[in-house]
Amino acid sequence: MHKLKPYIAQNENALYYECGFSCDNALFLRFGTNEAYFLTDGRYVAEAKENIKNAEVIDAKKDLIKKAREIIKKAHLKYIIFDPLEFSVAKFDALSKNLNITFIPQKNFSQIKRMIKSKDELNLISQAVHEGKKAFDKFCVFIRQEGIDKSEEELFFNAELIFKHKGRLGLSFAPIIAINENAAKPHALPSTNKILKNGDLLLLDAGVKYQRYCSDRTRTIEMKNSATFEKTQHFKDLFRQKIYDTVLKAQRAAIDTIKVGVKASEIDKAARDVIEKAGFGKYFIHSTGHGVGLDIHELPVISPYADTIIEEGMVFTIEPGIYLPDNFGVRIEDMIAIVEGKAEVLNENAQ
Amino acid sequence: MHKLKPYIAQNENALYYECGFSCDNALFLRFGTNEAYFLTDGRYVAEAKENIKNAEVIDAKKDLIKKAREIIKKAHLKYIIFDPLEFSVAKFDALSKNLNITFIPQKNFSQIKRMIKSKDELNLISQAVHEGKKAFDKFCVFIRQEGIDKSEEELFFNAELIFKHKGRLGLSFAPIIAINENAAKPHALPSTNKILKNGDLLLLDAGVKYQRYCSDRTRTIEMKNSATFEKTQHFKDLFRQKIYDTVLKAQRAAIDTIKVGVKASEIDKAARDVIEKAGFGKYFIHSTGHGVGLDIHELPVISPYADTIIEEGMVFTIEPGIYLPDNFGVRIEDMIAIVEGKAEVLNENAQ
Repeated sequence: MHKLKPYIAQNENALYYECGFSCDNALFLRFGTNEAYFLTDGRYVAEAKENIKNAEVIDAKKDLIKKAREIIKKAHLKYIIFDPLEFSVAKFDALSKNLNITFIPQKNFSQIKRMIKSKDELNLISQAVHEGKKAFDKFCVFIRQEGIDKSEEELFFNAELIFKHKGRLGLSFAPIIAINENAAKPHALPSTNKILKNGDLLLLDAGVKYQRYCSDRTRTIEMKNSATFEKTQHFKDLFRQKIYDTVLKAQRAAIDTIKVGVKASEIDKAARDVIEKAGFGKYFIHSTGHGVGLDIHELPVISPYADTIIEEGMVFTIEPGIYLPDNFGVRIEDMIAIVEGKAEVLNENAQ
Repeated sequence: MHKLKPYIAQNENALYYECGFSCDNALFLRFGTNEAYFLTDGRYVAEAKENIKNAEVIDAKKDLIKKAREIIKKAHLKYIIFDPLEFSVAKFDALSKNLNITFIPQKNFSQIKRMIKSKDELNLISQAVHEGKKAFDKFCVFIRQEGIDKSEEELFFNAELIFKHKGRLGLSFAPIIAINENAAKPHALPSTNKILKNGDLLLLDAGVKYQRYCSDRTRTIEMKNSATFEKTQHFKDLFRQKIYDTVLKAQRAAIDTIKVGVKASEIDKAARDVIEKAGFGKYFIHSTGHGVGLDIHELPVISPYADTIIEEGMVFTIEPGIYLPDNFGVRIEDMIAIVEGKAEVLNENAQ
């Protein structure tokens, strides 16, 4: 029964997943179902002890690596797993040097464990999506009332404020807010000289954290008095409308493909085919989606090269886009959970 | 003349220092005074080319590591320096595997280069300190008018707002705001159930970024209608006053010790001696200071173990503290620049 492989982790979300607590200076070791250690320093020991029930909390003073080496030595392990993306060369050297034990690198060790969400996790993610949606609605009220003549930078600042909800919520990431040709850059930074006017195309990509779980959503709209962040959007310009409708169709095609058992690459292909057939294939310059959970970007990746098989409990985005340089860009993004074998668009009903 | 050692870097502040531009996906290689490469992907190439004058900007598409390997191979180097704290085990393996060249690890390679600030850098840091000071003053107005009955979390949210100055400034770090016993934790997180009342002890540790250079400052005050963030503070409670005065005396002793040629550990000792003599040595649980520049924590470290010799152009904090668990804590922090051989307390006159 003792099949659990011993591992060491340091990433905050990996630690939180393992024991419901994390801090910015800690190491976590698990050698068996009943043998686990949370190493931290004096600043965090009391709080760690209050929160961690499934591991022994150890005050490692100033040298966590030294203490981890002692514990590993005592355990007489044959090997221990670590994520080579998590540890710097210097830290890994200090940890492993002359220990006479095999450190097995496993990339994304924690993210792979976290790919299938539990019921509790799905509830928290749904709640995050719900809060994110509410923030979009509030931001909509703001731009209708005060958005005109504001710069991207001012819009960005207000988006941060609104999505943080007076500090009650964290941000999944810094909101992306982009007007017209700036929306053609998938990772646009807000500028001071781009000013919102009626009739502009406006892209907003933003999310919140609810009890550490992330939401992620993108809408592209036409700015007007009656602006909304609904998916049905009317653009005066027929070419913009055509691009928008193509992206929306691509998103629907991808979502319609999703069920337990399909490959992630098939989902990507469904979206990509629509955009390619419309003649804009070379302007869809990123993957169709990514997993979301404690990290804003986690597994599975929904890309042309991803052979992950979709399983019950996975959560990921579907976010095709078309980016026409120096002209404009459109992206539409929602989060999907796999429930009872099928795609459930989170917060779809509330839209 | 060709004494420059070839190196590779990826940290954003290291890159910004080298060529005045950075982005979240880039590698920088310098092989000689006139041979340097900035590798990034399509999203950032245009902006990189606009900003970088002293290196060739290369669009490495999706695989920066592959492109870096090609460039390193072609250069026929004997060795190349990298910072083992900057590269993950996985990335370093991908970069160096079978390249038949020696990668020499040098910890803090960039931070060591950046330890002595230029005149231009000193000006930017002074400006950051000045902006930070102004934000303290604004926050003071806020707490006088609206602070009473607000929770730490609400105070924190408002501190963030004020220090960001409508998004015009970045934060050096998330402000630390703590009331009474929470101030006894050097890295306190804001709580919802700790409410500010008149007579409370309030600790604020905050800083801003000005053109990417950081400021850092801490004040501990007594909350009252006439509250200020000046260093002269009057506490009704005599014990609090005694602790405050001890910390202030320790800070002055440290600052008085600073000049070109002294060891960093001697500066730390000057502060520590004052606190130890007063009987609170075991409650001063961190180093006396740290360098500040593009990173909020850089070199030199001002600690009991630091044998760095102080030089012209260094910039660091002096921030002794006394932390009495479950009671209260006091920390006083200012930034010091070494100018004409002596300590100049940045923005001292404005206090």
